[in-house]
Amino acid sequence: MTRWTVGVDFGGTNIKCGIVDSRGRVARTLSVPTSQCAMPRAFIDGVARAVNTLARGRGIRTSQLRGVGIGAPGLIDAARGIVHSLVNVPGWHDVPLARRLSARLRAPVCVENDANLVALGEYRFGAGRGAHSLLCLTLGTGVGGGLVCDGRLYRGVSGSAGEIGHMVVDRGGARCGCGRRGCLEALVGTAAILRLGRQALRLGSPKLRALVRREGRLMPRLIGRAARSGEMQAQRVWQEIGRRLGIGLANLVNLLNPDCIVLGGGIANNWSSFYPAMMKTLRADAMDVPGRAVRVLRGRLGDEAGILGAAVLVWDELGGTGRGTRGGGKAQ
Amino acid sequence: MTRWTVGVDFGGTNIKCGIVDSRGRVARTLSVPTSQCAMPRAFIDGVARAVNTLARGRGIRTSQLRGVGIGAPGLIDAARGIVHSLVNVPGWHDVPLARRLSARLRAPVCVENDANLVALGEYRFGAGRGAHSLLCLTLGTGVGGGLVCDGRLYRGVSGSAGEIGHMVVDRGGARCGCGRRGCLEALVGTAAILRLGRQALRLGSPKLRALVRREGRLMPRLIGRAARSGEMQAQRVWQEIGRRLGIGLANLVNLLNPDCIVLGGGIANNWSSFYPAMMKTLRADAMDVPGRAVRVLRGRLGDEAGILGAAVLVWDELGGTGRGTRGGGKAQ
Repeated sequence: MTRWTVGVDFGGTNIKCGIVDSRGRVARTLSVPTSQCAMPRAFIDGVARAVNTLARGRGIRTSQLRGVGIGAPGLIDAARGIVHSLVNVPGWHDVPLARRLSARLRAPVCVENDANLVALGEYRFGAGRGAHSLLCLTLGTGVGGGLVCDGRLYRGVSGSAGEIGHMVVDRGGARCGCGRRGCLEALVGTAAILRLGRQALRLGSPKLRALVRREGRLMPRLIGRAARSGEMQAQRVWQEIGRRLGIGLANLVNLLNPDCIVLGGGIANNWSSFYPAMMKTLRADAMDVPGRAVRVLRGRLGDEAGILGAAVLVWDELGGTGRGTRGGGKAQ
Repeated sequence: MTRWTVGVDFGGTNIKCGIVDSRGRVARTLSVPTSQCAMPRAFIDGVARAVNTLARGRGIRTSQLRGVGIGAPGLIDAARGIVHSLVNVPGWHDVPLARRLSARLRAPVCVENDANLVALGEYRFGAGRGAHSLLCLTLGTGVGGGLVCDGRLYRGVSGSAGEIGHMVVDRGGARCGCGRRGCLEALVGTAAILRLGRQALRLGSPKLRALVRREGRLMPRLIGRAARSGEMQAQRVWQEIGRRLGIGLANLVNLLNPDCIVLGGGIANNWSSFYPAMMKTLRADAMDVPGRAVRVLRGRLGDEAGILGAAVLVWDELGGTGRGTRGGGKAQ
């Protein structure tokens, strides 16, 4: 066995594979369009090819890898390596992904929910390094979440813990994709941002209007650009998103008393636009002691968070991190 | 050292002390009115006297106790045995309670938040026996909470985790004692129940009105009695409380994926009145997998939950449970 591990991030647009050394450096990545590999068989084929290529690039066989970690957007039985179901990807029902891919690669394979792996990645290598307990929110179309409690990934009894996006904070509020009303995801997900953006356009946002005309449609990053260029109505969008996030974070702070919350995902790129309002609400709404104990930080690993988290998963499950423990994979 | 442990429950009305054997049986309890012993020095005197009496009743000295566990309603540094502050009890600021009482009794003393101890008690001896992860809510004037994650009490980074009552579920809703709006406590605490009860009286509840006239004032237990006697408006109070509880529980289920939620406290005595509406909302609002994984149970330990939880704390912290581990207290 070598020092190399492969992390795989099953995203909505691309499946990203990265080969990682024992110090958490991503030496090379490969991407496969998700549209070509969304179903289980094609996914296994596509990932196996990519892992092969990455291993060959280091002059080794896949069987010499420490292991392969996979993060997928859905309900995962991590202990048994089974994908129960995926969000927005049909065709995955109780797929024994770890076993199948492991047989193909002759290397141990671990599977976990993707948001959990982002949390694990940021905890070990990113903004949450050294934290005791960390919550990680991934802000985008959906709002994903992962919890590291007392230094360990907290999965709950059936592996679904961390659904921060589906915490109701506004009973009877905006309808969420999950069918409920007033979930955090319904308040701060992309759809909510676009709704506020359209309102900003109606109230008069000439810069945002010009950007939308140029790019063809309203997108959160255009609202971000308009806000940074000083347009008041666009700034108000992010202030409102900040307040809503602040309510959600205060709930989490009161409930779990973490020392660190990490916000990642594309929407976090508008950090300076929503941060002040978010922190003001959080400070007002969190109880004194847990409110003082928490730092809210922007994720540091960006696109590599999922890949690095998948590598951490392999080390934690199979042994052999860069922290001095010895390797010893299941299928070696 | 003997098999005896003393658990102390610092309540709003009484300080209850109980002597517990190694199998979790409370042999005898003593109560001291809180009004006489609310300040630190008087508390230590009162508890020391009660512990002495309980030990003498077993024919032993306090130094022969396995230890004394104390649950107090506030912010506790369990690792150092310090009471930072108490809710509704002034005069407690960073009191080194464990050290002071331990010197007095010549026995080890552990201190923890009282809602955490109720969770620990129900987990080890009550409704949550055998659970993997358990949330415990204490329903009363306030809504307290405690979390047992993966079999361990989860305290958070500064010991304040578990404030389930101060999770906002109705942004902009009813004002809470904590100053925020729409907290679970503001929706299902005693004040909210009384508000709904007054509404029931206005809408016409002859039985409830007669009960109030006889007892002198509206109380949750009278609304409970009227509901059980078939009065519709009183039943509606509990249905609404059930729905509100269901929203809160669904949030917790989505976030933490526990296999067990235990509801205790005086309000839980109206179990059959609020349970159907609570479960209907929970089933509708929780995500499929964690929703199926959770059981919601009524606490089984009643008034003894805090005392038993305090005994479990002593065993867990100092060793020596009835489960085969050996004793070995700090101050022996």
